[in-house]
Amino acid sequence: MSDDVLTTVSSTGGPRRRRVSVKALPQHNRVHNRAVVLQALFHQGAMSRADLARESGLTRPTVSVLVAELEADGIVAEIGQREDVRVGKPATLVEINPDAFHMIVLDLSSADRFVGAVVNLRGEVVDRADLAIDGAVREDAIARVIRLAERLSALTTQRILGIGVGSPGIVDDQGVVREALHLEWFDLPLRQRLADYFHLPVLVANDANVAALGVHTFREVPGLSLMVVTIEHGVGVGLIIGGSLVEGEQFSAGEIGHVTVGADGEGALCTCGRRGCLETVIGARYLSDRIAGLDEGARGEVLRDAGRALGVVAAPVISALNLNEVVLSGPSDLLDGPFRDAAVDTIKARTLSVVGEGLSLRTTQGDGDLVLLGGASLVLQAELGVS
Amino acid sequence: MSDDVLTTVSSTGGPRRRRVSVKALPQHNRVHNRAVVLQALFHQGAMSRADLARESGLTRPTVSVLVAELEADGIVAEIGQREDVRVGKPATLVEINPDAFHMIVLDLSSADRFVGAVVNLRGEVVDRADLAIDGAVREDAIARVIRLAERLSALTTQRILGIGVGSPGIVDDQGVVREALHLEWFDLPLRQRLADYFHLPVLVANDANVAALGVHTFREVPGLSLMVVTIEHGVGVGLIIGGSLVEGEQFSAGEIGHVTVGADGEGALCTCGRRGCLETVIGARYLSDRIAGLDEGARGEVLRDAGRALGVVAAPVISALNLNEVVLSGPSDLLDGPFRDAAVDTIKARTLSVVGEGLSLRTTQGDGDLVLLGGASLVLQAELGVS
Ligand SMILES: [Zn+2]
Ligand SMILES: [Zn+2]
Repeated sequence: MSDDVLTTVSSTGGPRRRRVSVKALPQHNRVHNRAVVLQALFHQGAMSRADLARESGLTRPTVSVLVAELEADGIVAEIGQREDVRVGKPATLVEINPDAFHMIVLDLSSADRFVGAVVNLRGEVVDRADLAIDGAVREDAIARVIRLAERLSALTTQRILGIGVGSPGIVDDQGVVREALHLEWFDLPLRQRLADYFHLPVLVANDANVAALGVHTFREVPGLSLMVVTIEHGVGVGLIIGGSLVEGEQFSAGEIGHVTVGADGEGALCTCGRRGCLETVIGARYLSDRIAGLDEGARGEVLRDAGRALGVVAAPVISALNLNEVVLSGPSDLLDGPFRDAAVDTIKARTLSVVGEGLSLRTTQGDGDLVLLGGASLVLQAELGVS
Repeated sequence: MSDDVLTTVSSTGGPRRRRVSVKALPQHNRVHNRAVVLQALFHQGAMSRADLARESGLTRPTVSVLVAELEADGIVAEIGQREDVRVGKPATLVEINPDAFHMIVLDLSSADRFVGAVVNLRGEVVDRADLAIDGAVREDAIARVIRLAERLSALTTQRILGIGVGSPGIVDDQGVVREALHLEWFDLPLRQRLADYFHLPVLVANDANVAALGVHTFREVPGLSLMVVTIEHGVGVGLIIGGSLVEGEQFSAGEIGHVTVGADGEGALCTCGRRGCLETVIGARYLSDRIAGLDEGARGEVLRDAGRALGVVAAPVISALNLNEVVLSGPSDLLDGPFRDAAVDTIKARTLSVVGEGLSLRTTQGDGDLVLLGGASLVLQAELGVS
């Protein structure tokens, strides 16, 4: 797909200029209006042009021009008529064609396999593929990412809107992986590398951040703020506040896995070189090792202690932000049960009642596709202005 | 001042509608463009109309119309000419007239006195007044707030743009004080009460949030995110993330004073009914009591322990958000020195090095006007679209 097939809406990820915003240029307005129309159709389903005008605040003629453009691109299609109760004559409904484009999405966060999917514009998985990492690092690991993306692109004949990638480690707003220790990636321009190879728009962000975007865009959660805690090889959080992803000043937001719990200098040695990091207490591999061979009661107590540790670290964050929606993403056998229950109890015991009462802390109940969904969110937001 | 003298730009505080934004209405554009021009003049000082067009992305004719309107309102004035190096002829400079309007700002956060000021559009204090609370609660306390605002309004002959108030407790986006314990205010519509009395625009928000806005608008801090920790009668934080105030789902963001430190159920009894809240360890009155009569060494150790407790609670928040700018606001004799140093050391010891290295944690060095400045920010943002 060439760049001019779709007008690109700049993502919110870039560095924001302080103070003066430039929003009034005619071209910007056109792109913005197009995104407003798509956003309404994306989240509210089939609508008439009159519905769209009302929802968007745009004039009827503007909506008609935009819909005609979107129909020409194949993104929007007429799907039939509905009696319009207000004017008493039939209104033609338009809807996003979910297969107008497919997207390639990659989840690189797992320790042993790179996982990917082809998804449609609704975020529905059309096909899947994965590839063992086999301890590959540096260029070998990149070669495997490329091989997986090639396999996926061979699984669809639709136009590809872009490639969305959730990577472990610290990822900046240019899609450079500043640091992903176990893959030995340092200052790797992963976005650029994939874009050069595939000649497609590519978006890369931190896996926990991407998971949070996936929940925000595709799962029914109330409000505009949420936190996803990913408990896998590493431990991190993705934060959406007021509808926007928090990236942090050094693109290191969400790194709570290396906040220490307990007294300074105590606890197990962590990959980061310090002792007692949260990751050494609740990280999936540490937890699995620790409960291996234990009976049910002892197993429950280890998981409860781990849940408590998460609660102690999460309580200040949830209080400071007055967050209601928290999702734990990771192995169900570890997280569903005593771990989650102890985390909830600890957070409620350690925060003001108004904060605890509003809290909903859920596990993903086996929904392991959050990073893949978030990859689709990245592409939809960058290419269509939909979030 | 009647409502139609200035076009009101809605504040960012209101509940945001999910999904579809309405930004394309012509009236909205006009108000938005006016705010863009004021924002540029506010933060960059005197400029020519050509400068303004370039900065704002607006056309020259649009800028000329907007500047003419602002001159008619008295907000903007021509201040002379400057040689324009590009075209070689003189360009007329325009600037905000700081005394076009004054604002009344109130800080209700102190335990013993309501404090207020008259400030100009630059946030400079024109005059001050305060009033003892003398233990007044409920209607008596409201009567004192009104009396203080009346005194302040008598101290200026300029038009008054509005009244900005930092209140203790939980304040919603309608300026209702949901709960301020020591004033016995519960669901008090303070904004409406003051607006009805003074017939002026009134903005009310939580004191720590207002302090954070004050730093963001009027103090030189890099980046778009910061946290102000207020350590007074109560302990709270105000958070600006990506340029926007975090209010929280129940308007209770920032309530870290009631996060417990140490083991559950241990520690001193807090006003909230629980034990071991951070406020009982670092709150100004508790700290003052605890160090009274101690020698220098013992005093230092108490302050260091308190700073450590703040560090333990702040580390997860700073990590999750990757915040660089943290300001401690409160009594200098308590905060400048071992308290601050121990807080910094603890945060650095308990977070990833990239987070600690980016951190700047300062006290206000006696700048006690943050809440007052923030009151001015509230009014400027609501009435002129300047932030
Ligand atoms: Zn670590
Ligand atoms: Zn408390």
